[in-house]
Amino acid sequence: VVTHALDAGLPAVQLREKDLPGRPLLALAERLRRATADRGALLFVNDRLDVALAVGADGVHLGERSFPADVARRMLPPGMRIGCSTHTPADAAACEADFCFFGPVFATPSKAAFGAPHGCARLGEAVRGARVPVVGIGGIDAENVGSVLAAGAHGAAVIRAILTAPDPAHATRALLAAVALGV
Amino acid sequence: VVTHALDAGLPAVQLREKDLPGRPLLALAERLRRATADRGALLFVNDRLDVALAVGADGVHLGERSFPADVARRMLPPGMRIGCSTHTPADAAACEADFCFFGPVFATPSKAAFGAPHGCARLGEAVRGARVPVVGIGGIDAENVGSVLAAGAHGAAVIRAILTAPDPAHATRALLAAVALGV
Repeated sequence: VVTHALDAGLPAVQLREKDLPGRPLLALAERLRRATADRGALLFVNDRLDVALAVGADGVHLGERSFPADVARRMLPPGMRIGCSTHTPADAAACEADFCFFGPVFATPSKAAFGAPHGCARLGEAVRGARVPVVGIGGIDAENVGSVLAAGAHGAAVIRAILTAPDPAHATRALLAAVALGV
Repeated sequence: VVTHALDAGLPAVQLREKDLPGRPLLALAERLRRATADRGALLFVNDRLDVALAVGADGVHLGERSFPADVARRMLPPGMRIGCSTHTPADAAACEADFCFFGPVFATPSKAAFGAPHGCARLGEAVRGARVPVVGIGGIDAENVGSVLAAGAHGAAVIRAILTAPDPAHATRALLAAVALGV
Protein backbone atom coordinates (compact mmCIF):
# COMPACT_ATOMS: atom_id res chain seq x y z
CA VAL A 1 0.00 0.00 0.00
CA VAL A 2 2.75 2.44 0.94
CA THR A 3 4.63 1.83 -2.29
CA HIS A 4 1.51 2.47 -4.34
CA ALA A 5 0.86 5.67 -2.39
CA LEU A 6 4.47 6.82 -2.85
CA ASP A 7 4.30 6.11 -6.57
CA ALA A 8 1.18 8.26 -6.66
CA GLY A 9 3.13 11.16 -5.12
CA LEU A 10 2.81 10.81 -1.35
CA PRO A 11 5.54 13.12 0.02
CA ALA A 12 6.04 11.65 3.51
CA VAL A 13 5.41 8.48 5.50
CA GLN A 14 5.33 7.89 9.24
CA LEU A 15 6.06 4.39 10.52
CA ARG A 16 3.86 3.85 13.56
CA GLU A 17 3.77 0.28 14.85
CA LYS A 18 3.61 0.50 18.59
CA ASP A 19 3.47 -3.22 19.25
CA LEU A 20 6.53 -4.32 17.28
CA PRO A 21 9.85 -4.87 19.07
CA GLY A 22 13.15 -3.68 17.64
CA ARG A 23 13.99 -6.28 15.04
CA PRO A 24 10.76 -6.47 13.01
CA LEU A 25 10.34 -2.70 13.36
CA LEU A 26 13.86 -2.16 12.04
CA ALA A 27 13.19 -4.48 9.10
CA LEU A 28 10.02 -2.56 8.25
CA ALA A 29 11.80 0.78 8.67
CA GLU A 30 14.58 -0.35 6.33
CA ARG A 31 12.02 -1.26 3.65
CA LEU A 32 10.24 2.06 4.08
CA ARG A 33 13.55 3.94 4.05
CA ARG A 34 14.40 2.43 0.67
CA ALA A 35 10.90 2.98 -0.71
CA THR A 36 10.79 6.63 0.41
CA ALA A 37 14.39 7.48 -0.52
CA ASP A 38 13.94 5.99 -4.00
CA ARG A 39 11.07 8.41 -4.58
CA GLY A 40 12.38 11.48 -2.77
CA ALA A 41 9.82 11.14 0.02
CA LEU A 42 10.42 11.71 3.72
CA LEU A 43 10.34 9.01 6.38
CA PHE A 44 9.42 9.59 10.00
CA VAL A 45 9.52 6.97 12.74
CA ASN A 46 7.09 7.08 15.64
CA ASP A 47 8.38 6.86 19.21
CA ARG A 48 11.63 4.92 18.63
CA LEU A 49 14.64 7.15 18.17
CA ASP A 50 16.90 4.12 17.85
CA VAL A 51 15.02 2.82 14.82
CA ALA A 52 15.01 6.30 13.26
CA LEU A 53 18.76 6.61 13.80
CA ALA A 54 19.49 3.11 12.53
CA VAL A 55 17.81 3.69 9.16
CA GLY A 56 18.66 7.36 8.74
CA ALA A 57 15.06 8.53 8.88
CA ASP A 58 14.30 12.18 8.16
CA GLY A 59 12.74 12.55 11.55
CA VAL A 60 10.90 11.12 14.52
CA HIS A 61 7.36 11.60 15.66
CA LEU A 62 6.76 11.86 19.39
CA GLY A 63 3.37 11.07 20.89
CA GLU A 64 2.36 12.08 24.38
CA ARG A 65 3.82 8.80 25.65
CA SER A 66 7.11 9.18 23.73
CA PHE A 67 10.35 10.86 24.76
CA PRO A 68 10.02 14.57 25.56
CA ALA A 69 11.12 16.74 22.59
CA ASP A 70 14.10 18.24 24.44
CA VAL A 71 15.49 14.79 25.27
CA ALA A 72 15.05 13.71 21.65
CA ARG A 73 16.74 16.89 20.45
CA ARG A 74 19.85 16.15 22.49
CA MET A 75 20.03 12.61 21.11
CA LEU A 76 19.41 13.21 17.42
CA PRO A 77 21.69 14.73 14.79
CA PRO A 78 20.85 18.37 13.88
CA GLY A 79 19.27 17.53 10.53
CA MET A 80 16.74 15.11 11.93
CA ARG A 81 13.31 16.68 12.34
CA ILE A 82 11.10 16.20 15.38
CA GLY A 83 7.33 16.20 15.28
CA CYS A 84 5.01 16.08 18.28
CA SER A 85 1.38 15.10 18.70
CA THR A 86 -0.81 17.79 20.25
CA HIS A 87 -4.45 17.62 21.22
CA THR A 88 -5.26 21.14 22.43
CA PRO A 89 -4.32 24.60 21.14
CA ALA A 90 -2.37 25.08 24.41
CA ASP A 91 -0.31 21.94 23.64
CA ALA A 92 0.35 23.26 20.15
CA ALA A 93 1.44 26.64 21.54
CA ALA A 94 3.85 24.91 23.94
CA CYS A 95 5.32 22.63 21.29
CA GLU A 96 9.09 22.96 20.99
CA ALA A 97 9.53 20.38 18.25
CA ASP A 98 10.04 21.27 14.58
CA PHE A 99 6.38 20.76 13.79
CA CYS A 100 3.29 19.39 15.46
CA PHE A 101 0.30 17.30 14.57
CA PHE A 102 -2.98 18.65 15.90
CA GLY A 103 -6.11 16.59 16.14
CA PRO A 104 -8.43 14.92 15.91
CA VAL A 105 -9.74 17.52 13.48
CA PHE A 106 -12.64 15.27 12.44
CA ALA A 107 -14.10 12.13 14.02
CA THR A 108 -11.95 9.03 13.59
CA PRO A 109 -11.69 5.71 15.41
CA SER A 110 -7.90 5.87 15.93
CA LYS A 111 -8.13 9.17 17.82
CA ALA A 112 -11.34 8.57 19.78
CA ALA A 113 -9.26 8.27 22.97
CA PHE A 114 -8.29 11.93 22.56
CA GLY A 115 -11.85 13.18 22.88
CA ALA A 116 -14.38 14.79 20.56
CA PRO A 117 -13.07 16.14 17.26
CA HIS A 118 -11.86 19.73 17.37
CA GLY A 119 -13.13 20.89 14.00
CA CYS A 120 -11.43 23.43 11.77
CA ALA A 121 -12.09 26.49 13.93
CA ARG A 122 -10.08 25.03 16.78
CA LEU A 123 -7.44 23.83 14.32
CA GLY A 124 -7.14 27.47 13.19
CA GLU A 125 -6.74 28.51 16.82
CA ALA A 126 -3.94 25.95 17.23
CA VAL A 127 -2.24 27.20 14.06
CA ARG A 128 -2.36 30.83 15.20
CA GLY A 129 -0.99 30.00 18.66
CA ALA A 130 1.78 27.62 17.59
CA ARG A 131 5.35 28.72 16.93
CA VAL A 132 5.87 25.78 14.57
CA PRO A 133 4.05 24.43 11.51
CA VAL A 134 0.88 22.52 12.36
CA VAL A 135 -0.27 19.41 10.52
CA GLY A 136 -3.92 18.42 10.83
CA ILE A 137 -4.76 14.81 11.64
CA GLY A 138 -7.91 12.85 12.34
CA GLY A 139 -10.62 11.85 9.89
CA ILE A 140 -9.07 13.78 7.00
CA ASP A 141 -9.91 12.72 3.46
CA ALA A 142 -10.06 14.19 -0.03
CA GLU A 143 -13.46 15.74 0.73
CA ASN A 144 -12.39 17.76 3.76
CA VAL A 145 -8.63 18.29 3.35
CA GLY A 146 -9.28 21.64 1.66
CA SER A 147 -10.96 22.94 4.82
CA VAL A 148 -7.97 21.78 6.89
CA LEU A 149 -5.60 23.82 4.75
CA ALA A 150 -8.02 26.74 4.66
CA ALA A 151 -7.85 26.74 8.47
CA GLY A 152 -4.11 27.43 8.15
CA ALA A 153 -2.67 23.95 8.62
CA HIS A 154 0.66 23.43 6.89
CA GLY A 155 -0.27 19.91 5.92
CA ALA A 156 -2.51 16.97 6.62
CA ALA A 157 -1.78 13.48 7.87
CA VAL A 158 -4.03 10.55 7.10
CA ILE A 159 -4.28 6.90 8.06
CA ARG A 160 -7.58 5.46 6.88
CA ALA A 161 -7.93 7.66 3.78
CA ILE A 162 -5.03 5.78 2.20
CA LEU A 163 -4.48 2.56 4.16
CA THR A 164 -8.05 1.33 3.92
CA ALA A 165 -8.82 2.72 0.47
CA PRO A 166 -9.78 0.12 -2.17
CA ASP A 167 -7.21 1.78 -4.46
CA PRO A 168 -4.49 3.50 -2.37
CA ALA A 169 -2.85 5.11 -5.41
CA HIS A 170 -6.15 6.59 -6.53
CA ALA A 171 -6.89 7.77 -2.97
CA THR A 172 -3.47 9.41 -2.77
CA ARG A 173 -3.94 11.19 -6.08
CA ALA A 174 -7.37 12.41 -4.96
CA LEU A 175 -5.88 13.77 -1.72
CA LEU A 176 -3.01 15.48 -3.51
CA ALA A 177 -5.36 17.00 -6.08
CA ALA A 178 -7.56 18.34 -3.29
CA VAL A 179 -4.48 19.74 -1.52
CA ALA A 180 -3.36 21.44 -4.73
CA LEU A 181 -6.82 23.02 -5.10
CA GLY A 182 -6.95 23.90 -1.41
CA VAL A 183 -3.59 25.68 -1.54
CA VAL B 1 11.80 -4.02 45.15
CA VAL B 2 14.80 -3.09 43.02
CA THR B 3 16.09 -0.63 45.59
CA HIS B 4 15.86 -3.23 48.33
CA ALA B 5 17.69 -5.74 46.13
CA LEU B 6 20.40 -3.21 45.28
CA ASP B 7 20.84 -2.33 48.94
CA ALA B 8 21.30 -6.03 49.58
CA GLY B 9 24.14 -6.13 47.05
CA LEU B 10 22.56 -6.89 43.67
CA PRO B 11 25.31 -6.01 41.16
CA ALA B 12 23.24 -5.47 38.00
CA VAL B 13 19.69 -4.74 36.88
CA GLN B 14 18.02 -5.17 33.51
CA LEU B 15 15.02 -3.00 32.69
CA ARG B 16 12.66 -5.11 30.61
CA GLU B 17 9.22 -3.61 30.06
CA LYS B 18 8.22 -4.52 26.55
CA ASP B 19 4.81 -2.87 26.62
CA LEU B 20 5.84 0.61 27.74
CA PRO B 21 6.30 3.39 25.18
CA GLY B 22 9.22 5.82 25.32
CA ARG B 23 8.17 8.31 27.96
CA PRO B 24 7.20 6.03 30.87
CA LEU B 25 10.08 3.71 29.99
CA LEU B 26 12.50 6.62 30.07
CA ALA B 27 11.14 7.77 33.43
CA LEU B 28 11.60 4.27 34.85
CA ALA B 29 15.08 4.00 33.33
CA GLU B 30 16.08 7.32 34.89
CA ARG B 31 14.98 6.12 38.33
CA LEU B 32 16.85 2.84 37.88
CA ARG B 33 19.92 4.68 36.58
CA ARG B 34 20.05 6.77 39.75
CA ALA B 35 19.38 3.77 42.00
CA THR B 36 22.07 1.64 40.34
CA ALA B 37 24.66 4.40 39.98
CA ASP B 38 24.26 5.39 43.64
CA ARG B 39 25.19 1.85 44.62
CA GLY B 40 27.81 1.08 41.98
CA ALA B 41 25.55 -1.40 40.20
CA LEU B 42 25.18 -1.84 36.45
CA LEU B 43 22.05 -1.01 34.47
CA PHE B 44 21.05 -2.73 31.24
CA VAL B 45 18.05 -1.78 29.11
CA ASN B 46 16.20 -4.41 27.12
CA ASP B 47 15.50 -3.83 23.42
CA ARG B 48 15.48 0.00 23.34
CA LEU B 49 18.85 1.47 22.46
CA ASP B 50 17.39 4.98 22.61
CA VAL B 51 16.38 4.59 26.24
CA ALA B 52 19.78 3.08 27.08
CA LEU B 53 21.54 6.00 25.39
CA ALA B 54 19.29 8.61 26.99
CA VAL B 55 20.05 7.51 30.54
CA GLY B 56 23.67 6.43 30.02
CA ALA B 57 23.02 2.78 30.78
CA ASP B 58 25.96 0.40 31.05
CA GLY B 59 24.55 -1.70 28.26
CA VAL B 60 21.64 -3.04 26.30
CA HIS B 61 20.12 -6.48 26.21
CA LEU B 62 18.96 -7.77 22.86
CA GLY B 63 16.33 -10.48 22.61
CA GLU B 64 15.68 -12.47 19.47
CA ARG B 65 13.17 -9.81 18.41
CA SER B 66 15.53 -6.88 19.16
CA PHE B 67 18.09 -5.18 16.92
CA PRO B 68 20.82 -7.50 15.62
CA ALA B 69 24.02 -7.14 17.68
CA ASP B 70 26.06 -5.72 14.79
CA VAL B 71 23.51 -2.95 14.21
CA ALA B 72 23.49 -2.13 17.92
CA ARG B 73 27.31 -2.10 17.97
CA ARG B 74 27.44 0.53 15.23
CA MET B 75 24.96 2.73 17.10
CA LEU B 76 26.30 2.56 20.65
CA PRO B 77 29.40 4.17 22.15
CA PRO B 78 32.36 1.78 22.61
CA GLY B 79 31.97 1.48 26.38
CA MET B 80 28.38 0.32 26.26
CA ARG B 81 28.05 -3.45 26.64
CA ILE B 82 25.75 -5.60 24.54
CA GLY B 83 24.10 -8.77 25.79
CA CYS B 84 22.07 -11.20 23.69
CA SER B 85 19.52 -13.85 24.57
CA THR B 86 20.35 -17.32 23.31
CA HIS B 87 18.30 -20.48 23.55
CA THR B 88 20.55 -23.16 22.03
CA PRO B 89 24.28 -23.90 22.36
CA ALA B 90 24.56 -23.06 18.62
CA ASP B 91 23.06 -19.60 19.27
CA ALA B 92 25.52 -19.10 22.11
CA ALA B 93 28.44 -20.13 19.88
CA ALA B 94 27.33 -17.66 17.20
CA CYS B 95 26.85 -14.79 19.65
CA GLU B 96 28.89 -11.71 18.72
CA ALA B 97 27.73 -9.55 21.60
CA ASP B 98 29.81 -8.92 24.74
CA PHE B 99 27.99 -11.62 26.67
CA CYS B 100 24.95 -13.81 26.29
CA PHE B 101 22.14 -15.12 28.37
CA PHE B 102 21.43 -18.81 27.89
CA GLY B 103 18.23 -20.45 28.96
CA PRO B 104 15.86 -21.50 30.19
CA VAL B 105 18.20 -23.52 32.40
CA PHE B 106 15.33 -24.63 34.65
CA ALA B 107 11.56 -24.56 34.17
CA THR B 108 10.05 -21.09 34.45
CA PRO B 109 6.80 -19.51 33.25
CA SER B 110 8.46 -16.48 31.58
CA LYS B 111 10.58 -18.68 29.30
CA ALA B 112 8.06 -21.44 28.54
CA ALA B 113 7.76 -20.12 24.98
CA PHE B 114 11.41 -21.07 24.43
CA GLY B 115 10.79 -24.76 24.99
CA ALA B 116 11.72 -27.30 27.65
CA PRO B 117 14.42 -26.29 30.11
CA HIS B 118 17.97 -27.10 29.02
CA GLY B 119 19.39 -28.16 32.34
CA CYS B 120 22.95 -27.63 33.49
CA ALA B 121 24.60 -30.13 31.12
CA ARG B 122 23.40 -28.19 28.09
CA LEU B 123 24.30 -24.92 29.81
CA GLY B 124 27.84 -26.30 30.14
CA GLU B 125 27.79 -27.14 26.45
CA ALA B 126 26.78 -23.55 25.66
CA VAL B 127 29.53 -22.19 27.90
CA ARG B 128 32.19 -24.34 26.22
CA GLY B 129 31.05 -23.37 22.72
CA ALA B 130 30.61 -19.64 23.29
CA ARG B 131 33.32 -17.06 22.65
CA VAL B 132 31.78 -14.72 25.22
CA PRO B 133 30.75 -15.00 28.87
CA VAL B 134 27.47 -16.88 29.36
CA VAL B 135 24.89 -15.95 31.97
CA GLY B 136 22.35 -18.58 32.97
CA ILE B 137 18.68 -17.60 33.09
CA GLY B 138 15.41 -19.39 33.75
CA GLY B 139 14.11 -20.72 37.03
CA ILE B 140 17.29 -19.90 38.92
CA ASP B 141 17.10 -19.43 42.68
CA ALA B 142 19.31 -19.69 45.74
CA GLU B 143 18.88 -23.47 45.78
CA ASN B 144 20.14 -24.12 42.26
CA VAL B 145 22.39 -21.16 41.42
CA GLY B 146 25.43 -23.11 42.62
CA SER B 147 24.84 -25.75 39.94
CA VAL B 148 24.57 -23.00 37.30
CA LEU B 149 27.99 -21.66 38.24
CA ALA B 150 29.40 -25.17 38.54
CA ALA B 151 28.34 -25.69 34.90
CA GLY B 152 30.66 -22.85 33.96
CA ALA B 153 28.24 -19.94 33.70
CA HIS B 154 29.80 -16.55 34.40
CA GLY B 155 26.71 -15.40 36.21
CA ALA B 156 23.02 -15.90 36.73
CA ALA B 157 20.01 -13.73 35.96
CA VAL B 158 16.77 -14.02 37.88
CA ILE B 159 13.29 -12.55 37.68
CA ARG B 160 10.97 -14.41 40.04
CA ALA B 161 13.59 -15.25 42.66
CA ILE B 162 13.79 -11.58 43.59
CA LEU B 163 10.72 -9.84 42.15
CA THR B 164 8.15 -12.19 43.68
CA ALA B 165 10.03 -12.92 46.90
CA PRO B 166 8.22 -11.97 50.12
CA ASP B 167 11.43 -10.20 51.18
CA PRO B 168 13.47 -9.15 48.10
CA ALA B 169 16.48 -8.05 50.18
CA HIS B 170 16.59 -11.39 51.95
CA ALA B 171 16.20 -13.25 48.66
CA THR B 172 19.03 -11.22 47.13
CA ARG B 173 21.32 -11.94 50.08
CA ALA B 174 20.48 -15.64 49.84
CA LEU B 175 21.33 -15.64 46.11
CA LEU B 176 24.59 -13.78 46.64
CA ALA B 177 25.59 -16.08 49.49
CA ALA B 178 24.90 -19.11 47.30
CA VAL B 179 26.92 -17.53 44.47
CA ALA B 180 29.82 -16.89 46.84
CA LEU B 181 29.73 -20.52 47.97
CA GLY B 182 29.31 -21.71 44.36
CA VAL B 183 32.36 -19.76 43.21
